[in-house]
Formats: sequence, C-alpha cells, structure tokens
Amino acid sequence: MWIGIVGLGLIGGSLGLDLRAQGKTVWGVSRSRATCEMALRVGAVDIASTQLADIPHLQETAVVFVCTPIDQVLSTVQVLAEHLHPLTVITDVASVKGAIVQSAQAMYSRFVGCHPMAGSEVQGIKGAQKHLFVDRPCVICPAPDPEAIAVVQSLWASLGMRIYYCDPHTHDQAVARISHLPVMVGASLIHACQQGLDPTVQYFAQKLASSGFRDTTRVGGGNPELGTMMARFNREALQVALAQYQQQIEHLSQLIADQNWSAVQNYLENAQKWRSLFG
Amino acid sequence: MWIGIVGLGLIGGSLGLDLRAQGKTVWGVSRSRATCEMALRVGAVDIASTQLADIPHLQETAVVFVCTPIDQVLSTVQVLAEHLHPLTVITDVASVKGAIVQSAQAMYSRFVGCHPMAGSEVQGIKGAQKHLFVDRPCVICPAPDPEAIAVVQSLWASLGMRIYYCDPHTHDQAVARISHLPVMVGASLIHACQQGLDPTVQYFAQKLASSGFRDTTRVGGGNPELGTMMARFNREALQVALAQYQQQIEHLSQLIADQNWSAVQNYLENAQKWRSLFG
Repeated sequence: MWIGIVGLGLIGGSLGLDLRAQGKTVWGVSRSRATCEMALRVGAVDIASTQLADIPHLQETAVVFVCTPIDQVLSTVQVLAEHLHPLTVITDVASVKGAIVQSAQAMYSRFVGCHPMAGSEVQGIKGAQKHLFVDRPCVICPAPDPEAIAVVQSLWASLGMRIYYCDPHTHDQAVARISHLPVMVGASLIHACQQGLDPTVQYFAQKLASSGFRDTTRVGGGNPELGTMMARFNREALQVALAQYQQQIEHLSQLIADQNWSAVQNYLENAQKWRSLFG
Repeated sequence: MWIGIVGLGLIGGSLGLDLRAQGKTVWGVSRSRATCEMALRVGAVDIASTQLADIPHLQETAVVFVCTPIDQVLSTVQVLAEHLHPLTVITDVASVKGAIVQSAQAMYSRFVGCHPMAGSEVQGIKGAQKHLFVDRPCVICPAPDPEAIAVVQSLWASLGMRIYYCDPHTHDQAVARISHLPVMVGASLIHACQQGLDPTVQYFAQKLASSGFRDTTRVGGGNPELGTMMARFNREALQVALAQYQQQIEHLSQLIADQNWSAVQNYLENAQKWRSLFG
C-alpha cells in the first residue's frame, strides 16, 4: 500500500521523511527533475517522477497529499481524480481552505481539506526535515466522507500533530490574523527600515539590527510567492485583518504623539499578557 | 581593581557573569535586596548592596556600568559622580543615547555613552547568562576623553562584541527603526489578533498561532516598562519611523485591495532581499 505526495517542497519532503520512517512506501511527483532526484537522495520518497502517469502504483495508493503551491491544488486534484482508484483519499496542506475545499470535494468526494501549520525558513526540498510536524497544530475541514476524515486524521496524528476540526471560513479568518497578517506586517517593517532613511542612519540600522528585528521580520522576509498566494486566496479575510491592524498601530501612534505614557504602558502590558494566549 | 555595576537586570547580571569569568572583581548595586542576593548566588557579583554608599571599594573602581532603566541613568550618574574617584570611567547601556550622553558628560567628564545590543525574553537577573554579548553589536558614542573611550571599548570587545562608533542622534534614528519600531509593530499585531474577532475565530486564532506569530510578536510582547521608555526617550525618531511604517502598510494594503498581485509579489521580493542586509 502506497502513500503519494504531489509537490516535494518543505512540507511534502518532510512528510515523506516521516512517513517512510514509519515504514510506509511513498511515491512523489514534482515538476522539477532536480527536486525528484534530491527527494530520492535524502530519502523523502521511494520513487519519484515529474509525471503522475509514470508512477506505477497509483491504483494501490491509499492517500495522496497535495503539497503544491496554493494555486495548483485544484488542478492537481482534478488530474489525480482521473488517475486514482475511487477509494483513494486525497488531502492537501494549503494555508487557505475556503478557496479550495468545496471545489475540490465537488471534483472528488474523498477529498479532505487540511492545513498542517509547520514551516521553516529554508524553502523547498532542501528544508525537508524529520519531526517537522511534532506538537504543531493541524486543521482538518469537514468532509462528506467520515472514513476519509478518519484516515487523514490518523496520519497527521501519527506525525505528532495536534488536530483541530474547523470549517474553511473560520479557518481562513483565524489564519488571516495569526499567519497571513504577520507576513504583511513584517514585510512592511523591512520596507520602513530600508526606505526614507539618511544614508548614514541606514548604514547603522543595518549594522545594529539584532535578534528583535530578525525575529519580527522572519515571516515577512519569507517566500514571496507563498505570501502573494496567501493574499490572493484569502484576500477578503486579510483585508479585514489589515484594516483592524492599521487602526491598532494608528491608535498606539496617537498615544505616543500625545505622550500619554501610562496608556502606552497599558497597551504594551495588554500585548504582553495576551501574547501568552496564542500557540 | 574593581568593576561596578548599578542595576542588576538581564544586562547588568550578564555583564557581571562574563567579567567575573575573566577574573575581574565586581560590585553590584540594585534597589532590590532579593536581586542583590540572587546576583550573589548566581555569581554575577562578588559583593552587592542596595546602597551605593555601602560598597567598600568605590575609590578603587576602574569602571562603573550603569544598567538601570533608561529613566534612572542620569540620576544614577549624578550620584556616582559624587562618590567615585575622578579617574573612574562611567558608561551606560541604555537603548537611547540623545537623551543621555550630553547631559551625563556635563555631570561627569569621564562618561562614555554605550549601547550593547543584546537581549533575551527572560527579564531581570533571572535572565542573566554568560556569553550574552558575543557577536552582538555595541555602539560607543563620542566622548571628550579618548582614554575613557579606550577603556570602555576594550571591555566590550573582551566580551566578544562588534564595536561601532556612532553619534547619539544617528544612533537614536537607527534604533528607532530596527529596535523600537518592531516593538510597536509587534504589540499592535497582538492587539489586532485579540480584538474585533468573532469568539469562534478567536479560539482558533489562539490555537493555530505558531512560530510565525510567536516570532513576529516576540519583542512586541516583551517588557512593557522598557517599551514605554523607548517611546518616551526616543519619541521624535520613533514618531517619524511609525509614520513611514504606516505609509508602507497602507501601500501594501492598497496593492492587495487592488488585486495587483505582481506588485504584491514584487513588494515581498524586495522585503526578502532587503532583510538579508540587516544584522
């Protein structure tokens, strides 16, 4: 019995490493021949190909994980639906769910939309690592087929993930705040540290930047294609989040302009207190 | 020959640990008796007192590091100036310099304003650790006494710091961007993830928050007193930085609202590219 992975990046590659460590056999598909070769070399897959049709075990595949960029999930599900045995379960890992789950289930009834929330600064198969998913949250969206959900839930749990059931709309609103908004906030911070400064100040800003700057901008300076996809496929929720964020920073800026130091301190105390509620 | 440290928090305590590991003898002063006792217990100081006047080696002290909160640096220098031998060098570690250096030098000619850029999430003497300063930048501001600068430079370099010479005004503008602005940006992000959300979305936002949220908000959820001091003592530079940051996030929000995905991607690509210039 085989497990399939389409898209051998950080998530797909890490998934392959963990599943093979459990003794499962894994096939992988990537558009890039070099990625296929590297996935084989690091042991993320048993076999790999740039063409789905060349995979010899499609009909014996229990589950396929679609780990492509967000904008290729639906077209991948469509192609898989034509090649797989109808008992095969298809799942995905995309960070938006509203734009995907209902459409994918219309194409293939045993589709279960998921979002394992794991990442790394190193993109692509180079970043693939064992145990990436341990203790990280994984969202599973409602699906018409309870057995398909059970299969997917069992696999994510076997990797050590904390499972949450959540509808696509609620998921997308939540990740707009805690995942997509931080990307835009961090990217804007980098721009504000690079533009509009006197050259001498700029020099020192670059030399003196330390762990505070690096941590605050880590996801904002991450994969630009992924950031663009987040904005494109979760635009409405992200726009609401951005508007509310802009109100917050405007409010804090006004407290500072007013030299209302007790209110500034109160604002920062709430931030400190509330942060511990997350994650 | 003794080294003195006034203010036994994260920076003062870590400084004591490293200096004593070099074989130097260190006295410490803290307003809190419990902090004095803990500093002795962890080995950050040889002797400690809540009263400067009770320290028996003031006249044999070569250098005193003022590691108090920003708003107590000047009053501490004033008191030290009355008790120390005039050959003793006084330096500080405050994250703003314009509000301190000139005034402190008017009180005491052998004062050298410094800013070692090191930190930790754990505040106070509890967070004190060896090697905190290794490979971190340290700003030294101009001072009338070149020998005093040489003494201070030699000590910070012996802890492994990268030394930069920078005037107070330039320093304050640079740290407003890369150190003080990230605090306000991160605090506002926490507020935007805690306020204005439907309770179910709020629940999932908290459960799904992962390393991206945690890193982006680390300094924003840090010490509220320190954040308030940064704003208070570097207000003008921070207000300029906040205004330019608000323009940046407004611009990015507009690109998203316009669904101008190539421009969004270009913005995120610049963020990714520019981030590597910092630190």
